[in-house]
Amino acid sequence: MTTFLGLGEMGRALATVGGAATVWNRTPKAFPGAAVAATVEEAVAGTGLIVACLFDLTSVHDVLDPVVDGLDGRTLLNLTTTTPRESRDLAAWAAGHGVTYLDGAIMAVPEMIGGPGSAVLYSGDAAAFEAHRPLLDRWGTATFLGTDAGAAALYDMAMLTGMYTMFAGFLHGAAMVAADGGSVTGFAAMQAPFLAAMTNGLAGFASTVDTRDYGGPGQQSLAFTDTALAALLAASAEQGVDPRVLTPVRELVRRQIDAGFGAQGTARIFEELSGGNR
Amino acid sequence: MTTFLGLGEMGRALATVGGAATVWNRTPKAFPGAAVAATVEEAVAGTGLIVACLFDLTSVHDVLDPVVDGLDGRTLLNLTTTTPRESRDLAAWAAGHGVTYLDGAIMAVPEMIGGPGSAVLYSGDAAAFEAHRPLLDRWGTATFLGTDAGAAALYDMAMLTGMYTMFAGFLHGAAMVAADGGSVTGFAAMQAPFLAAMTNGLAGFASTVDTRDYGGPGQQSLAFTDTALAALLAASAEQGVDPRVLTPVRELVRRQIDAGFGAQGTARIFEELSGGNR
Ligand SMILES: NC(=O)c1ccc[n+]([C@@H]2O[C@H](COP(=O)([O-])OP(=O)(O)OC[C@H]3O[C@@H](n4cnc5c(N)ncnc54)[C@H](OP(=O)(O)O)[C@@H]3O)[C@@H](O)[C@H]2O)c1
Ligand SMILES: NC(=O)c1ccc[n+]([C@@H]2O[C@H](COP(=O)([O-])OP(=O)(O)OC[C@H]3O[C@@H](n4cnc5c(N)ncnc54)[C@H](OP(=O)(O)O)[C@@H]3O)[C@@H](O)[C@H]2O)c1
Repeated sequence: MTTFLGLGEMGRALATVGGAATVWNRTPKAFPGAAVAATVEEAVAGTGLIVACLFDLTSVHDVLDPVVDGLDGRTLLNLTTTTPRESRDLAAWAAGHGVTYLDGAIMAVPEMIGGPGSAVLYSGDAAAFEAHRPLLDRWGTATFLGTDAGAAALYDMAMLTGMYTMFAGFLHGAAMVAADGGSVTGFAAMQAPFLAAMTNGLAGFASTVDTRDYGGPGQQSLAFTDTALAALLAASAEQGVDPRVLTPVRELVRRQIDAGFGAQGTARIFEELSGGNR
Repeated sequence: MTTFLGLGEMGRALATVGGAATVWNRTPKAFPGAAVAATVEEAVAGTGLIVACLFDLTSVHDVLDPVVDGLDGRTLLNLTTTTPRESRDLAAWAAGHGVTYLDGAIMAVPEMIGGPGSAVLYSGDAAAFEAHRPLLDRWGTATFLGTDAGAAALYDMAMLTGMYTMFAGFLHGAAMVAADGGSVTGFAAMQAPFLAAMTNGLAGFASTVDTRDYGGPGQQSLAFTDTALAALLAASAEQGVDPRVLTPVRELVRRQIDAGFGAQGTARIFEELSGGNR
């Protein structure tokens, strides 16, 4: 018996592919094949698993605070986007009410749910993850990241940071090419395989960062990268492109050079971003 | 008869794989198998093709200005990194001295030259590109981008912008994960295939930009992206990560929302970066 709370675009996709028994939405919505509950109380009555896919942390509390005292022994799978700390707070709040908590972060758009390429990260209660694998596997590749309830949100958001910066960098390059009348489609046909190939370099950066071996062999030095970025910024200015996506990358490099690390590897940008907080 | 000017790390790799007949370097360097010229004048005497791989535009002029009057009828292949405008200026300067000009932008590090994955973009004189294909093919995949001498540098730099922003975004995500003690190597193992898959989305952005169809179906709206970026920035702050790589991406999104385009596609970032200059 699974109850789905939230029939927005994503909630509806999850409930459809997941075969919901009972559904509820703040604004009443039809949902063929499941019992549509009129109230949250009615929706969660007698259910074992509650899947929430609402707007944000506040909406989760709006919906569940009034009924949480009756949820002792149930499992809450929260697929609403929350920050890592919010996920941990929800896990503590659930535990305080005898509710088993599993957090999920969806790496897909609604149309992808249940199809190829759909992936969902999970963290929190390991037994709940195992117990509900058949359901989770229906949505997409399910990966469990550990019992820290914040881990799924953390890895999700860390990965999306790379995606959005990559998109912005691509659009910067596209603007450079388009300024001379070049086809952005033609540019993308070169850029996409190039960037995909360059993702092979991330493992090398990662082992450098994990071992802090920034002086090891085979690394592109910060000084070299600085020269390259200076050329890219000069070319961007020639093309009349707003440099704001690229400028901070050079700033990070320059700060590490100013700190005396010009001959070391470019992965030292990590130290600047971390601000020595690890 | 090919002459190579510049035996730095890249020049040496090009001359080795390319089978140089004559080489010259400002600081005298041995080069087994080729004639090592003592002066630039001696190096270019009687040669048909001059390959230059020096430091920057200034070094190219330092080396060739004194001898250019004797180069009428020769071909200069310049693989020194220059901005698009600098490449065009060099092409005009060469033409003024009866020199055929071909510009190249190397998408590889020295160790890759002649091996798999090595690629060089060319632009400028089309006949020179065809005539020297056997040499160019030895270095890596050779692509001719047209007779605008600046095109190779432009596409090279546009592509590198995407690469450096992707690297910076990855290191931002890595700093988020590492702040909780997570392994960056483990993170890279998830991030690399995810980003590679996300490059499939670039063609869609490109066709949107080329057609300016930002209101078309299936696009992630600027409003949605703004909410996502707000969450990423909140999570970054929780993890103590310097947000400077991500902040400008949100700024671009917000500026387009403020201009009234919140319901339109996120590719509109392009319009902001272009500043209406196309
Ligand atoms: N769409 C995606 O591509 C995607 C991808 C990954 C993750 N997610 C996450 O999935 C979650 C849902 O996204 P969505 O695309 O389905 O959004 P949506 O279409 O905007 O739906 C939002 C849902 O939340 C409900 N809601 C909002 N505020 C509420 C409140 N205070 N009390 C009760 N219900 C409330 C809405 O109910 P009403 O119908 O009554 O307004 C609706 O069911 C979000 O956290 C989102 O970040 C979405
Ligand atoms: N290395 C790469 O991964 C890479 C990738 C793509 C493109 N490139 C481009 O290839 C070019 C060469 O790079 P590199 O890695 O070979 O650099 P490098 O090892 O620093 O070599 C620089 C070369 O330029 C010469 N040079 C510098 N200033 C000069 C001047 N004023 N007059 C005469 N010669 C001068 C140096 O001569 P001395 O030995 O006398 O100093 C040396 O031969 C650069 O434009 C670079 O951007 C390099």
